[in-house]
Amino acid sequence: MDVINAYKEEFLTYLNKKIVVKEPANLYNPIHYILQIGGKRLRPVLTIMICDLFDGNSKKAYDAALAIELFHNFTLIHDDIMDSAPIRRGKVTVHEKWDVNTGILSGDAMMILASQCFENYNPKLFKKLVKLFNKTALEVCEGQQLDIDFETRNNVSIAEYIKMITYKTSVLVAAAMKMGAIIAGVKKQEADKIYEFGLNLGIAFQLQDDFLDTFGDASTFGKQIGGDIIENKKTFLYLKALEVCNKMDSEKLIGFYNTENKSETKIQEVTDLFTRNKISEITKTEIEKYTNKAFAILTELYISEDKKELLKNFGLGLMKRTI
Amino acid sequence: MDVINAYKEEFLTYLNKKIVVKEPANLYNPIHYILQIGGKRLRPVLTIMICDLFDGNSKKAYDAALAIELFHNFTLIHDDIMDSAPIRRGKVTVHEKWDVNTGILSGDAMMILASQCFENYNPKLFKKLVKLFNKTALEVCEGQQLDIDFETRNNVSIAEYIKMITYKTSVLVAAAMKMGAIIAGVKKQEADKIYEFGLNLGIAFQLQDDFLDTFGDASTFGKQIGGDIIENKKTFLYLKALEVCNKMDSEKLIGFYNTENKSETKIQEVTDLFTRNKISEITKTEIEKYTNKAFAILTELYISEDKKELLKNFGLGLMKRTI
Repeated sequence: MDVINAYKEEFLTYLNKKIVVKEPANLYNPIHYILQIGGKRLRPVLTIMICDLFDGNSKKAYDAALAIELFHNFTLIHDDIMDSAPIRRGKVTVHEKWDVNTGILSGDAMMILASQCFENYNPKLFKKLVKLFNKTALEVCEGQQLDIDFETRNNVSIAEYIKMITYKTSVLVAAAMKMGAIIAGVKKQEADKIYEFGLNLGIAFQLQDDFLDTFGDASTFGKQIGGDIIENKKTFLYLKALEVCNKMDSEKLIGFYNTENKSETKIQEVTDLFTRNKISEITKTEIEKYTNKAFAILTELYISEDKKELLKNFGLGLMKRTI
Repeated sequence: MDVINAYKEEFLTYLNKKIVVKEPANLYNPIHYILQIGGKRLRPVLTIMICDLFDGNSKKAYDAALAIELFHNFTLIHDDIMDSAPIRRGKVTVHEKWDVNTGILSGDAMMILASQCFENYNPKLFKKLVKLFNKTALEVCEGQQLDIDFETRNNVSIAEYIKMITYKTSVLVAAAMKMGAIIAGVKKQEADKIYEFGLNLGIAFQLQDDFLDTFGDASTFGKQIGGDIIENKKTFLYLKALEVCNKMDSEKLIGFYNTENKSETKIQEVTDLFTRNKISEITKTEIEKYTNKAFAILTELYISEDKKELLKNFGLGLMKRTI
C-alpha cells in the first residue's frame, strides 16, 4: 500500500495548495475545516492511480481528484445536517461547530467549487468530465433520498437496497476511477469497464460494511459492533433475514426494529436470529459475488498483468476486513 | 411588453416539457412544486431575448434559460430555509410543505439539474457557459453569506452593501443576459458589455426595491410599506442615513434597529428621520446613477438603434415603479 500512500501525499499537497481560506471567511472556513479533518482520501487517490495505471500523466488527474474530494465532503456536510450527526471523523460536524445555515451555504459553495476544478481541462475533456460528474452527483442525491425513504417503508426489496447503496456510495467511487481513465485518454469501452469495476467493488465494500457492523471484530472494525441493530437500520442483513426467515422470526425481527430498545440483549437476540437464518453466510456469498464480478472485469482490461495485479491487490486490500 | 410575454410563454412551454416528476418522487416533487408556483421568469426571458436581439437562434437559448431559472429557484429553496420563511410567492415554502431535509436535498439536486441543462451545447460553448454559470453561482453564495454577516455587523459600508447586492442579485441577471449573447455567438467584448448592462440594471433594481419598501406606494409595490424597517434590515437607506446624519439621529436610528419594535410609530419615525436627512433624494440619485450607467453601455453595442431602444424600454419598464 506504499504506492497508495504516495498518491495520497501527492494529492494532499495539491489540496493544501489549492484550498485556501478566502473572504467571506464564514463561507470558506467551514470548507477548509472539513477538508482538514482528514478522511481516507480514497476517491481522489483512485482517480490519480487509475490515470497513472493507464499511462496518463497523473498530475493531470489532480483537478478531477480534487473535484471528487470536494463533492464527497459537500455530501458529508449536508448529510450530517439531515442525520443531525454531531461527530464526523472524531471531530465536531460543520453544522454543530457553526450552525445549520452555515452548513447549508458552505455545502452549496463546495459543490460549485467542485465543478470549477474541471475548468483547467480543455473543452472536450471538460465536457466529458462534467457530464460524468453531474450524472454521478444527481445519482448520489437520489441515493440519499432512497435511503431516507426506506427509513419509513416496510417493503424494501433487496434489489431496491442494492440500488440505494449503488447510488449513495458506489457511483462516486466508480466515477472517480473512470475520470482517471478518461484523463489518461483511454477508449470509451475501456473507461466504461473501469467504471463497472469500481461500481461492483463499491457495492461489495458497502455490503461488507453491513456485514462487519454485526459480525465484525470490534478491535479492527473501528465502530461499535451492533450499531446498525441499535439504530434499526434496514441493512442488507435485515432485509435478507425478512426475505428468508419463518413467520415467527420475521415478527420477532420487525418487533425489535419497531422499538427504541438499545440494549445488548437486543443486539444478541437479533444477531442470533441472523445466525440461525444463515444471514452471515448469505451476505458473505453476496459480497463475494460483487467482488468476483469486479475482478472478472479486470481480466478484460488492456493493461499489463502487473497492473491488473496491482488493482486486484488494491481491491483485496479494501476488502481484507472480511477475512 | 408583449414581446416579453411571448418569450415568457415560449419558455414556460419548454420548462413544462422538460421538468417532469421522476422517481424518487420525494426528491423531484419539491422541484416541480417550486417551479410551478410561478414567478416573473425575468432571468430566463432575458437569456432568450438577448440571444434573439443579437440575431441568434432563440431556441438555442432555452437550455441556458432553464439552467438560470433552475439555479434561481434552488437559491430560493435554500434561502427560505436559512430565513425560516413560511411563504414564497403566496404559497407555502418547500421546507414548510415538506421539511428542512427535503428542502436541502431537493435544492442540491436542482443545482445539479441546472448544470446539466448546458449538456446540449457543443464542448466549446458548454465550457464557456458552465464557467460563467459556476462563477456566478459561487458569487451568489458569497452574496448570501455577506447578507448574513451584515445582520450582526454594525460597520457595513455603502461599498460593501453594493457588493453584497451585486453578488446576491445582480450577477445572475447579468449572467442570464450574457449567456444569451454567448449563445448568439457575439464577440467577447460585446458579451461583456451586455453583462455590465445587466449588472448595473440589477443594482439599480435592487436599490429601487430598498427605496420602494419605505417610500413606495402600497397599492402598486405589492409588499407592506415599512417591512424593512420593521425587520431592522440594513438597507441602502439605513446605511446611507448613518453615514450622513448627525449624532442624535444616528443614535436614534441605531436605537430603533436594536429593538424588536414592530409598531407603525417606528415606521413613521424612521421614515421621518430618512426624510429630514434627504435619504429619499440621495437614493433616487444613486438609482439614477446605476440606471444611466446601464443605458450608457447600451449606446456602445453593435446592434441596431431599434434594438437598443427595446433594451432601454425593457430597463425603463423594470424601473417604472419609481416614477
